[in-house]
Amino acid sequence: VVWPERTEEVAAIVRACAEARVPIVPFGAGSGVCGGAVPLHGGLVVDLKRMRRLVALDEVGRSATFEAGAVGEHLEHALARRGYTMGHFPSSIMCSTFGGWLAARSAGQLSTRYGKIEDMVHGLELVDGLGNVHALDVRADRGLVEWVVGSEGTLGIITRATCGVHPAPAARRMRGWSFPHVDGGCEAIRRLLQEGLRPAAVRLYDELDSFLHRQSSGRPAPEVGEGAALEAWASSLGPSPGASLAERVQRRALGAALGLPGALNRVLESILPYTQGGCLLIVGFEGEAWRAEAEADAAADLLARTGGRDLGPGPGERWLAHRYDVSFGMSKVFHAGAFVDTMEVAASWDKLPQLYRAVRAALAPLAFVMAHFSHAYADGCSIYFTFASRGRTPLDTLRRYDEVWQAGLAAVTSVGGTISHHHGVGLLKAPFMPAEHGAGMRLYEGLKRVFDPHGVMNPGKMGL
Amino acid sequence: VVWPERTEEVAAIVRACAEARVPIVPFGAGSGVCGGAVPLHGGLVVDLKRMRRLVALDEVGRSATFEAGAVGEHLEHALARRGYTMGHFPSSIMCSTFGGWLAARSAGQLSTRYGKIEDMVHGLELVDGLGNVHALDVRADRGLVEWVVGSEGTLGIITRATCGVHPAPAARRMRGWSFPHVDGGCEAIRRLLQEGLRPAAVRLYDELDSFLHRQSSGRPAPEVGEGAALEAWASSLGPSPGASLAERVQRRALGAALGLPGALNRVLESILPYTQGGCLLIVGFEGEAWRAEAEADAAADLLARTGGRDLGPGPGERWLAHRYDVSFGMSKVFHAGAFVDTMEVAASWDKLPQLYRAVRAALAPLAFVMAHFSHAYADGCSIYFTFASRGRTPLDTLRRYDEVWQAGLAAVTSVGGTISHHHGVGLLKAPFMPAEHGAGMRLYEGLKRVFDPHGVMNPGKMGL
Repeated sequence: VVWPERTEEVAAIVRACAEARVPIVPFGAGSGVCGGAVPLHGGLVVDLKRMRRLVALDEVGRSATFEAGAVGEHLEHALARRGYTMGHFPSSIMCSTFGGWLAARSAGQLSTRYGKIEDMVHGLELVDGLGNVHALDVRADRGLVEWVVGSEGTLGIITRATCGVHPAPAARRMRGWSFPHVDGGCEAIRRLLQEGLRPAAVRLYDELDSFLHRQSSGRPAPEVGEGAALEAWASSLGPSPGASLAERVQRRALGAALGLPGALNRVLESILPYTQGGCLLIVGFEGEAWRAEAEADAAADLLARTGGRDLGPGPGERWLAHRYDVSFGMSKVFHAGAFVDTMEVAASWDKLPQLYRAVRAALAPLAFVMAHFSHAYADGCSIYFTFASRGRTPLDTLRRYDEVWQAGLAAVTSVGGTISHHHGVGLLKAPFMPAEHGAGMRLYEGLKRVFDPHGVMNPGKMGL
Repeated sequence: VVWPERTEEVAAIVRACAEARVPIVPFGAGSGVCGGAVPLHGGLVVDLKRMRRLVALDEVGRSATFEAGAVGEHLEHALARRGYTMGHFPSSIMCSTFGGWLAARSAGQLSTRYGKIEDMVHGLELVDGLGNVHALDVRADRGLVEWVVGSEGTLGIITRATCGVHPAPAARRMRGWSFPHVDGGCEAIRRLLQEGLRPAAVRLYDELDSFLHRQSSGRPAPEVGEGAALEAWASSLGPSPGASLAERVQRRALGAALGLPGALNRVLESILPYTQGGCLLIVGFEGEAWRAEAEADAAADLLARTGGRDLGPGPGERWLAHRYDVSFGMSKVFHAGAFVDTMEVAASWDKLPQLYRAVRAALAPLAFVMAHFSHAYADGCSIYFTFASRGRTPLDTLRRYDEVWQAGLAAVTSVGGTISHHHGVGLLKAPFMPAEHGAGMRLYEGLKRVFDPHGVMNPGKMGL
């Protein structure tokens, strides 16, 4: 492991490795969930965390240049002290780096307003696989910048980058809405986006996810956080005197999940119509006061017209307050010998209902599964599936984990969705690259060779 | 010249040419101004104009798929009949094709709201230099799509593409503003964009361009059109009894332009401060009624606060009405043995004043020069220079034309601007690629070889 402190050091390291044909794994904070930072062939880990400076804040051009190793939370603090925000808030913000965001095409929780990281980038510095340093600017080199972003260290090492920044938002309008079914909620999101509205937060929880959210609302915070529904479900494992019907259902759910997820999914689906259910949609606007107000008003009109029931500001504000609550409750699931994971996929609007149903159907026999829709666009949306399961033995559990991914991603490609929205490809999704890209793989392989002729840059990732 | 009618025919043509090493020049409507469609090494012109169908209109996903040879005006008519617009309105719309827009990263007159063509594209079909057909979707292949867009036929032939569409705008608010100096006008545009406003039209004419606009306002339409100022200037050549001071200045301007542009520029610059001058800024919003109104109000507040004088809706509406008026008056200039051309360059906001002054200073000794600022972004803006000049002899005129471009683009790269905003690179700007991209040229060359190993695709363009 090496800890370079300057671009020149990175370049020298890469040159030496290229000459000696030693594999390099660029490393940020190691929060990736697809195995992109796993050294498959030994070699050198180039840990960038000592390169973490705010290099420049351009208040005229509204952009900030940071070194790649800056941890997200530190980056946002550095900007906040000066009155700005990058608007990029991934759940991993406390344990992921700026360079990692760029390498994996990260999306923050407010991406619908601020964009994914690739929408924010004005330019970047890349050390390619020969150790050459390139300063790339989207104004002159948009194609190259877009090619490097998302390359997960397979083309070179991003050493610094410049992204747009915004003044800290002057106003914020959060609101919850209820829709009878997930399809109606999706339709409402589509119309919001196609009306040109850009909510900072837009999250639709499917029936099961919303049901568990409601059951957890009598508990102490976090009530509505990233993974909070699953956490509530996990907590229901513990002793719980005077358990309500919901709690009894949840406890039964866990038992089933630990071996019979198909039955669990069927039980919950049969109960849901009788639970005054529905889907929770959180929609929030922020920015200049005139804009937040105009957009929130236009959205409220539209959501009421599309069948939404106004739940007031509560659900949205609770989500905002708890959006980083790490679900330590998950450890109960792990201790029980089970696994929990997430799969973020995406499709155009016309394919989205099909994508939702196909992945649910593929996972349901194998895992307890719920989903929310977030990161919406005028032309499509991503779906974030959460699933939990276990096998009879540790080995069986590992086998089931692989089965779940195989079944889930096969379902994604079968309906023409994309296998990755913002977690990258790494090792986990690499086997599905040919299914998604077909003859395009020849281009991916060829383009990699141009940047990295000796094949030392993170070999074996992304199917490259 | 071949006229394929289907993708399979294009693929067969490219395969045959690749085997026989025959150069291919993809051809749309031939409106490019940088020589991108000039066959340098003989070979085959693949004219795509018979591939012009609307393949699909996806009203759920708000996108339209057209074949590459569709002429812009026909494409917009096909959409308008169905209640939609692509929002892409280049001045060349009547003589340029969809594929040409994509090949050269075209920008329409309303790009500040709707984006450049690369911001609209959802996917495209490419026949690469080996005759392989690739269907690329930004959701799965954003890097590849971005690499192909703007490649000017050097990587393959774009045969069809899908772009986002919008409902025909329900409302429109056009308005003109006057600013004492170009710097103040630029500052106002920057603040508009950084406030998150996305005017459909935003055009700031520099002092000279605005002066000529004002002088032409007593004439019949076109008053404020693309190139109308220059047209007015050209018309001033004709007999004009009872000529005003302005007209006498303009006539003198032509005389000077035909040989002494430096003197002309100095004369006009010395007159401008006494002509109750200033710069004209046109700002227009369109879209849903709530948005056009909210944005126009927010913009009016901001422009008044930044020193703008409200000129009412007139100037903006006149511009809109005449925005396609082709300046046939130009032919007078050509008949007089002179040349007129335009140079669209861009820079970040911090470099923009420097870019404006550097290019003006470089061109002023060689040509009569004026400029407007349009296609604005939160992080920068493009400048559209118009220049006219002549030499003592036809050969001398050609030499001067080359000198003008050499001096202008050298000035652009010296201040860190980019040599092309939306006209592409072609032949004209190719000599400046190395100055702009440095070591990156190795990547450009290598990536071309991946798509086109036999080097048959539009060889010699973009410096490749």
